[in-house]
Amino acid sequence: MYKNFKFTITHQDQKTPARCGEIHTPHGIVQTPNFIFCATKAAIKGVDLATMKQEGTQIILSNTYHLMLQPGSETIRALGGLHKMMNWDGPLLSDSGGYQIFSLGHGSVSNEIKGKRNSNRPQSLLKITEEGAKFKSYIDGSYHLLTPEKSIQIQRDLGVDFMVVLDECTPFNVTKEYTEKSMHMSHRWALRSLAEFKNHDDESQSLYGIVQGGIYDDLRKQSTDFVNENEFFAHAVGGSLGASKAQMHDIVAHTMSMLSKDRPVHLLGIGGVSDIFNGIKYGIDTFDCVHPTRLARHGGALVKVSMSENGKEHINIRNNRFKTDPNPIDSECKCSTCMRYSRGYLHHLFKAGEILGMQALTIHNVHFMNKLMLAVRGAIREDRVEEEQKIWCG
Amino acid sequence: MYKNFKFTITHQDQKTPARCGEIHTPHGIVQTPNFIFCATKAAIKGVDLATMKQEGTQIILSNTYHLMLQPGSETIRALGGLHKMMNWDGPLLSDSGGYQIFSLGHGSVSNEIKGKRNSNRPQSLLKITEEGAKFKSYIDGSYHLLTPEKSIQIQRDLGVDFMVVLDECTPFNVTKEYTEKSMHMSHRWALRSLAEFKNHDDESQSLYGIVQGGIYDDLRKQSTDFVNENEFFAHAVGGSLGASKAQMHDIVAHTMSMLSKDRPVHLLGIGGVSDIFNGIKYGIDTFDCVHPTRLARHGGALVKVSMSENGKEHINIRNNRFKTDPNPIDSECKCSTCMRYSRGYLHHLFKAGEILGMQALTIHNVHFMNKLMLAVRGAIREDRVEEEQKIWCG
Repeated sequence: MYKNFKFTITHQDQKTPARCGEIHTPHGIVQTPNFIFCATKAAIKGVDLATMKQEGTQIILSNTYHLMLQPGSETIRALGGLHKMMNWDGPLLSDSGGYQIFSLGHGSVSNEIKGKRNSNRPQSLLKITEEGAKFKSYIDGSYHLLTPEKSIQIQRDLGVDFMVVLDECTPFNVTKEYTEKSMHMSHRWALRSLAEFKNHDDESQSLYGIVQGGIYDDLRKQSTDFVNENEFFAHAVGGSLGASKAQMHDIVAHTMSMLSKDRPVHLLGIGGVSDIFNGIKYGIDTFDCVHPTRLARHGGALVKVSMSENGKEHINIRNNRFKTDPNPIDSECKCSTCMRYSRGYLHHLFKAGEILGMQALTIHNVHFMNKLMLAVRGAIREDRVEEEQKIWCG
Repeated sequence: MYKNFKFTITHQDQKTPARCGEIHTPHGIVQTPNFIFCATKAAIKGVDLATMKQEGTQIILSNTYHLMLQPGSETIRALGGLHKMMNWDGPLLSDSGGYQIFSLGHGSVSNEIKGKRNSNRPQSLLKITEEGAKFKSYIDGSYHLLTPEKSIQIQRDLGVDFMVVLDECTPFNVTKEYTEKSMHMSHRWALRSLAEFKNHDDESQSLYGIVQGGIYDDLRKQSTDFVNENEFFAHAVGGSLGASKAQMHDIVAHTMSMLSKDRPVHLLGIGGVSDIFNGIKYGIDTFDCVHPTRLARHGGALVKVSMSENGKEHINIRNNRFKTDPNPIDSECKCSTCMRYSRGYLHHLFKAGEILGMQALTIHNVHFMNKLMLAVRGAIREDRVEEEQKIWCG
């Protein structure tokens, strides 16, 4: 099992758990720490994957939930799998589908998990049982049952390098009892996922386990023990990370201290620059988030905090002060957007509703994140992570 | 005047007025016949101009009307002109702004000129006087007066290679008297445009005159005489071309027979494949139309008629029969879309509302049109235009 996959730690920081490594896959190597961009529905919105690679991208992910509903995993298999369909020959991760089911289902578990309580989305999650999660398609209202086995079967059809076990994404505002019960069911689901995975394993894919336990240290301990003791290739830190950044750091630090050091660890849904610096200092190897690409579509261009003039990690190109600005977003940036276009032109494209503006800013933000992760890896190797963080976050 | 511009006929067909030529500009050569793509608001929707060039594009146009309102010609001048702003170093044409003013203004003169009468757009054209056209901005309701001089001044700010004189786009359903009166005013506007042009000419730009006269042979004669006798670098065939394709062919044929042979001739707003073949047989040198790029955004991929199975010049990738089709749009096509993506994937992108689908089809259609024009030029040189038309149109 996993004989075409390998995780090598190439440098271990002496002061913190931060480390550099390489994840070897049948589709090449991911240098870690690294950032995984979201090709949610089998496409990065507005940017083709050849461009993603040119701008330094090593790995992307797609979402099982969206793809099982449109176009369906059988269609993707008929089109040769996700790599061939998207024309991407690099490493590829899919999630289990659980996050979106529970997110759309609980109103918004996304907000819940992140500690926000206000949401009034229609509920589409119908029932969670030991068997799996029953939900209604957001596309056509049809009924679906996603079980741990089904999730693995779909991810097998997708043909991704990295699969993830189905878990219940436990909301934030539930009791410890609920969190504990949910965690144990997620563990049983994880074992079923692993069994289904091994049952058809052809050495072309690998499986991530997920740590649950919410905000409770003792539950986190039980859940890290569980994943450490089972044959997962890698781990993801899941479940509620609390209601504040401080609590998130505590939970991640505590969880990371107990996780096996010889497997890669992914932190789900984190994409802010300072959050990434904090994550790598706890030993996180990979991150994913829609933030850099979604921000771009709303006119946000990632920059070092010192450049934004307002303490933020981005500038908003829609701002009128850029109307006649002949300079690129960042004169030191070598992305194809900064090499071609002025802030004034990008401002115009957004004002005029031209999708080229979204494309151009997405390219910039992708390049920015890849440059950031390259800098992070260099800083770890040279034991100057704190100094590097100051350069990016001020 | 026009000393940095030159039109050379490199091959004259013996059976028809069809010809091959080269238009030399300060930004390179346009081989004719050729097709001009519409970067309406200073962008091809969804495709960057480096890709446009890779797919064989030699020339694009932008619309004065849209750009004078957003971002404004002063802003474009501040950003170094349209070439620099868009990052396009090839030949570039702008229109006068008139078409959209009259098009939005008369309800839809676009439909009128093309012989369709139904339209219920709000009127934004307020008044046409000898001075110019007064209209309300579709963006913020502000009032604007576009005069022949103002149009030239704006196009000077844009810095395009080819400017066009302001004319009144006479609707279809008006009397001969109106058409004649309108034509004479357009001639006076053309002389004012030419005077304004010469007044500040720095040899970096050139000017197109427009033939009016609607569907009336005698008026077309007067208008061709007018443009032939004045110092325009090139001509455009404007005004109403009638209510049917047959009438359009008659009017274009008649007009072309009288136009000076030593100047390039542009046919406004024509982009269908069979229409282009008919046009080149009358001696038309360049065409423009939003059709190939707009069609792409609605899922239409241009193909040879023999491939569409329904007599059309395109297939609609949204059609369910493409859902699991692993083949490219056209297995003989060398565009970057056909080299990368299956029909099944493109179908999925459109179903999922991913803008990458629009981008990919736009690239295909751009490549298709450029390949068509290359084939047309080859066919003219080898005196086999009819045979070539059969290959494309069945």
